[in-house]
Amino acid sequence: MNQSIVGKYVPRVDALDKVLGRAKYADDIWFEGMLYAKVLRSKHPHARILKVDTSKAVQLEGVVAILTARDVPVNTFGIQTKDQVVLAEDRVRYMGDPVAVVAAETEEIADEATELIDVQYEILPSVFDQREALKQDAPKVHARGNLAAHRKIRKGNVEDGFAESDEIVEDTFSTQKSEHCHIEPHAGVAVVDSLGKVTVWAGSSLPNVAQAELARVLGLPMSKVRIVQPEIGGNFGGRNEISIEPYICLIAMKTKRPVKLVRTREEEFIASTIRHSYFLRYKTGVKKDGTLIAREIEIISDAGAYSSYGESSLTKSCILAAGPYRIPNVKVDGYLVFTNNPVGGAMRGFGAPQVHVAEETHMDNIASRLSIDPLELRVKNALKNGDTTVTGQVLHSVGLTETIERASEAFGWHKHLGEKAVRESKVRGKGVSCAIYPIGLTEKPNPSGAFVKCNMDGTINVIVGAVEVGQGSKTALSQIAAEEFGVELDKVNLTTGDTDVSPYDFGCVASRTTYTTGKAIQIAANSARSILFNTVAQELAVSPDALEMKNGKICVKGSPSKGVSIAEAVQLCYRRGMLVLGSGYFNPPNNLLDPETGRGSPYPSYVYATQMAEVEVDVECGLVKVLRIVAAHDTGRAINPVLVKGQIFGGAALGVGEALTESLVIEEGRTCNPNFFDYLITSIEDMPDVEAIIVEELEPTGPLGAKGFAEATNVPTAAAIINAICDATGAKIRTLPANPARVLQALKERKALHENWHSLDRV
Amino acid sequence: MNQSIVGKYVPRVDALDKVLGRAKYADDIWFEGMLYAKVLRSKHPHARILKVDTSKAVQLEGVVAILTARDVPVNTFGIQTKDQVVLAEDRVRYMGDPVAVVAAETEEIADEATELIDVQYEILPSVFDQREALKQDAPKVHARGNLAAHRKIRKGNVEDGFAESDEIVEDTFSTQKSEHCHIEPHAGVAVVDSLGKVTVWAGSSLPNVAQAELARVLGLPMSKVRIVQPEIGGNFGGRNEISIEPYICLIAMKTKRPVKLVRTREEEFIASTIRHSYFLRYKTGVKKDGTLIAREIEIISDAGAYSSYGESSLTKSCILAAGPYRIPNVKVDGYLVFTNNPVGGAMRGFGAPQVHVAEETHMDNIASRLSIDPLELRVKNALKNGDTTVTGQVLHSVGLTETIERASEAFGWHKHLGEKAVRESKVRGKGVSCAIYPIGLTEKPNPSGAFVKCNMDGTINVIVGAVEVGQGSKTALSQIAAEEFGVELDKVNLTTGDTDVSPYDFGCVASRTTYTTGKAIQIAANSARSILFNTVAQELAVSPDALEMKNGKICVKGSPSKGVSIAEAVQLCYRRGMLVLGSGYFNPPNNLLDPETGRGSPYPSYVYATQMAEVEVDVECGLVKVLRIVAAHDTGRAINPVLVKGQIFGGAALGVGEALTESLVIEEGRTCNPNFFDYLITSIEDMPDVEAIIVEELEPTGPLGAKGFAEATNVPTAAAIINAICDATGAKIRTLPANPARVLQALKERKALHENWHSLDRV
Repeated sequence: MNQSIVGKYVPRVDALDKVLGRAKYADDIWFEGMLYAKVLRSKHPHARILKVDTSKAVQLEGVVAILTARDVPVNTFGIQTKDQVVLAEDRVRYMGDPVAVVAAETEEIADEATELIDVQYEILPSVFDQREALKQDAPKVHARGNLAAHRKIRKGNVEDGFAESDEIVEDTFSTQKSEHCHIEPHAGVAVVDSLGKVTVWAGSSLPNVAQAELARVLGLPMSKVRIVQPEIGGNFGGRNEISIEPYICLIAMKTKRPVKLVRTREEEFIASTIRHSYFLRYKTGVKKDGTLIAREIEIISDAGAYSSYGESSLTKSCILAAGPYRIPNVKVDGYLVFTNNPVGGAMRGFGAPQVHVAEETHMDNIASRLSIDPLELRVKNALKNGDTTVTGQVLHSVGLTETIERASEAFGWHKHLGEKAVRESKVRGKGVSCAIYPIGLTEKPNPSGAFVKCNMDGTINVIVGAVEVGQGSKTALSQIAAEEFGVELDKVNLTTGDTDVSPYDFGCVASRTTYTTGKAIQIAANSARSILFNTVAQELAVSPDALEMKNGKICVKGSPSKGVSIAEAVQLCYRRGMLVLGSGYFNPPNNLLDPETGRGSPYPSYVYATQMAEVEVDVECGLVKVLRIVAAHDTGRAINPVLVKGQIFGGAALGVGEALTESLVIEEGRTCNPNFFDYLITSIEDMPDVEAIIVEELEPTGPLGAKGFAEATNVPTAAAIINAICDATGAKIRTLPANPARVLQALKERKALHENWHSLDRV
Repeated sequence: MNQSIVGKYVPRVDALDKVLGRAKYADDIWFEGMLYAKVLRSKHPHARILKVDTSKAVQLEGVVAILTARDVPVNTFGIQTKDQVVLAEDRVRYMGDPVAVVAAETEEIADEATELIDVQYEILPSVFDQREALKQDAPKVHARGNLAAHRKIRKGNVEDGFAESDEIVEDTFSTQKSEHCHIEPHAGVAVVDSLGKVTVWAGSSLPNVAQAELARVLGLPMSKVRIVQPEIGGNFGGRNEISIEPYICLIAMKTKRPVKLVRTREEEFIASTIRHSYFLRYKTGVKKDGTLIAREIEIISDAGAYSSYGESSLTKSCILAAGPYRIPNVKVDGYLVFTNNPVGGAMRGFGAPQVHVAEETHMDNIASRLSIDPLELRVKNALKNGDTTVTGQVLHSVGLTETIERASEAFGWHKHLGEKAVRESKVRGKGVSCAIYPIGLTEKPNPSGAFVKCNMDGTINVIVGAVEVGQGSKTALSQIAAEEFGVELDKVNLTTGDTDVSPYDFGCVASRTTYTTGKAIQIAANSARSILFNTVAQELAVSPDALEMKNGKICVKGSPSKGVSIAEAVQLCYRRGMLVLGSGYFNPPNNLLDPETGRGSPYPSYVYATQMAEVEVDVECGLVKVLRIVAAHDTGRAINPVLVKGQIFGGAALGVGEALTESLVIEEGRTCNPNFFDYLITSIEDMPDVEAIIVEELEPTGPLGAKGFAEATNVPTAAAIINAICDATGAKIRTLPANPARVLQALKERKALHENWHSLDRV
């Protein structure tokens, strides 16, 4: 393969329109006669609905329609588990559950009307802690009980392993709830045509899947539902469910007018899915030399009020919970538990950040107990080619050790830290964390399709369902297509995310787009190319196998002058009455896990990462500053190295936030900080220098050797920071985020334990 | 095949939106900051351009850009022959040649600015008659001379044939120039994005082809040019060239602003392509019993100033000129001649109406000479299965005789005409005309492609390049797709005419859409269906050949209960990681004619028609009223019989206009009647009752037996009317249209010849 575009930096194809403010997002769409919709949400975390009285609201001038549960054809939804409600009928389960939706001539009128709707509730007892919710006498969020799922992994025998071990180390850890905070809120416009076909412009990470779910909810065939992707202002898993779509469609269908709904930021915080908070227990048996022998893990995930992606992210957590290490005996039990909190869903890392921060801080605890360098402990146990995962999957293309080595060298792990802090109260420390992350959906088929057509001038059209959510997929997928045909990037036109024309694609989730959609493009391109090759071979009187595609030409192998351009080949086909069309799909090879043992090969491949952080902790006020991060990621072939690095920078930014600042403060079911003043995402001021290192351990099943890696980028960050805080101060943070109060508390506990406060000696 | 939807009437899928005024045409599209463009055209039929001074015009407030020839990257265009200019540089060749284009903030300012552009011309001698233009000393319209093309058909030996004949009959005929008069004028909007990709919304009958041509003119790769079809307000061949597209694109590229151009009706008459006017000579040798022995034909076509589709429509004329009859000796010479008249191009029938009106009135003259009933003469010589055309093609699926029989029976040809006219000056007569018309492009490959995808709920998406120009193709093609999958029509979603996603399609020209695109849909559907069949066969443990698709189910042949729905089959595939996608194309089998003899098989198949007309002629004022038409058309399988009848009604309306009223009056190159007051199209008041009869002589190569027939519908109409006028009055009209002046003139000539005014005796 003559790689001329893949592996090189080319500017993002969507960059200029975005930078110049020309990109059109859902809220930029306007139609004459458009209505504006607002959703009325529950004021209680758990209550029976006695009555919804809309009589006052409908009388407000400018109100056109009000829908309640009885107006929803199929009032359950959820891409994976269908237990959410479009509009609550008899019960609300969290403060955010939708009760009614108003459509009015202006947004202000719609807002005012929601306040005129009189909902009578009978308040029910609530439960907000996942461990409390598991108790026998806890209030039941759903009739089937609060235990939504129990996942198991069984490898070897942990009891035997613990018996063999020299040391047993135990830890607990709690992670927070957090929000995706994509800058564009959920927003959309719906229009219905004279034959009842609904067209929706609304950002989704999985428009083909959303189309099916929306059609089901609306009671329409999929041929009558079209989802079109405008520019999308961020995803991070936040657009993996349908959200505002049912409301605008139902109102458009009822009123025959275009309808727009744009969520406020507050609604985003309250009513969109969030990252599940976990309670975790780790117990590891280890030899004195650091060899890991056995590990037992318990995970209790707060589902919130509905399942959403809770089950599959818990499964992923269980598969990854033991970390990227060779451990002969592993037992993992994961529990997903309903509460009256906001709904946990898909979020970047999908269950991996929670288990990694627990597992990787636990690793440092083990190293400390054994007085081994934390890096050495990781090197010793790191997964390698041919090793077997906790589910029994034999690994290939494992780039973990190289990420450790490259990160260590760049970070200078074995050197002294740099200049000392200027103020006496500030101390510095370093931390390391490794990670493993899989590509593609857990246990489910998740194919991507592609259509390809070659034009008369040798330019290429590609049509896929995978969308640009800001991650750069449009650029990377265009590069793969350009590479396949050996043409320049601007000779490729990629159409994405219009369900009328895009072949099915599970979507831009699970770090699968480059790998799966990229491969589908290759397969479709190959089917188109075989038409070209067969025709050119006939013309040149050679076998198609004797031909190769090089520098935009189809020529006889070894005789670059004996050939034709792609344009000439397409025209040659045309003169013979042939069109150069192709279609293809790819499904990542995976299989179901055994429910009792968790044995199986749930993913086609994995990526690996090592991140190191240097922090400065102000021991007087508890404030932590991350000074630098080195992030080495095994990504398989980096289709566009600058976009890969951009992902690493973005992942690090999220990881810093999750380590130090981001947390939804939820008290008795009420989200107390639903805004960017009180909910602190990492700003440019908080960002450390990040050195991104790409390790290309090629994946044989991936397009041009690519894996998928986007979500892996924030998975190790928090642990590296927490470990660095401990290295600096001895303070063991076991609850995220490590905000000043928690750091001070941990420092107090450390002192109380009379441990050796070694790091402070360095000041 | 279990035909549940094909062959039945279903309402047009685009009907409601059009009837309710919701359909969006190009002029309904609006963008913020949009500019309006106007074209300045030549004031002379032939002149050298000495200078184009835009200095005054650019100073007008609100003028944003003015383009002249030097701003056009590639200043020649034409889908078939590339001799037209986007903007004339050194010479104008007709009163309509574009010289400059202005873009301004409003349409009014743009209009005013065109008047401020000072063009200095040196007037050149002109020529306006195609026979004059062939003379040695005629002014040369193009450097290569005025003879643009000479086409020949040679079959047998006409001299020997004439020698064998009992009678020799000769006639000449002249046809007029006419305009398509689609109600929506040429109009479009262009937008350019930050990476220089141009998107154009403008009605085209062949968007894929137009995309290639527009990209060439703009100097862009096709990947940077997207043509999207809004609703289209009629075509009739008028949208077979690019027209306003280059102007709006070039201005958008220059100004980075959206640009709209909507032609006025006057511009439509002056500057769009028109139907070529023909001068024709017919000479036929015939036996006393009516057996046709030899026919010699000369056709001189007025190309106007540029070639456009002149050559290929002349070729089609030559192939069809001898009519739908078995004649052993035929010689046809066709000449395409440049003049300084408006440009002849593609128009419904594409060279067939002109030769048929000449040939079919000539047939009546032969019948009259032999004192044979005109119908008998046609029956005797009608082409039948296995007969050989003038090009040597052996025919199959010939439904001509059945159209004659069915029309004759419905019309009551052999009965006396109905009630007599009430006023003495009015006389009645009847006329018959037959026709042959081919499907698909003449001598050129013209494939259509299709993409198909099957959704999880068993609904189907189809993507094609063929567009809905008002003819009903969207409905008919949807029916074919629904039939292929055995699903209801509303389970099919058809996307048409967006060059980013539509596979190549030569377009809705040459009556090819149902046949070619319909067949491509079948082939693509078949490739998708084979995925379904293979999977279901595995599941049911039978061979795929043992399965059939029936009533929306895939089941074992003969065991309708043993099977699954399409939705289940798609889901079954999905669970196995497979997507049900298909792509396919079809190219009508045809080949090139020998240039010296015209031998070959230029088309895959032909359709046949017989129309009969009853007219009432007011011999005092010359006014002709068509009282009724019976139109029997062999269409192959009628996919949607009501749409087929609609085409027949529309064709008859055009035929009535061409027979009696429609004519561009062009004096010294100036179009004198560029408006609907002076150019008379058939109104509802002029429309006779039309009885449409469908003859389904199935075409084995067509989808479900369909042929294509749309253009055939107006081909025989004019001759039936002209023959009826002669039957009523004895007046032989030999120049179209038969307006009152020409009818009175013909009546005078008839009297002067002292012929037996038999028809008047009937009054």
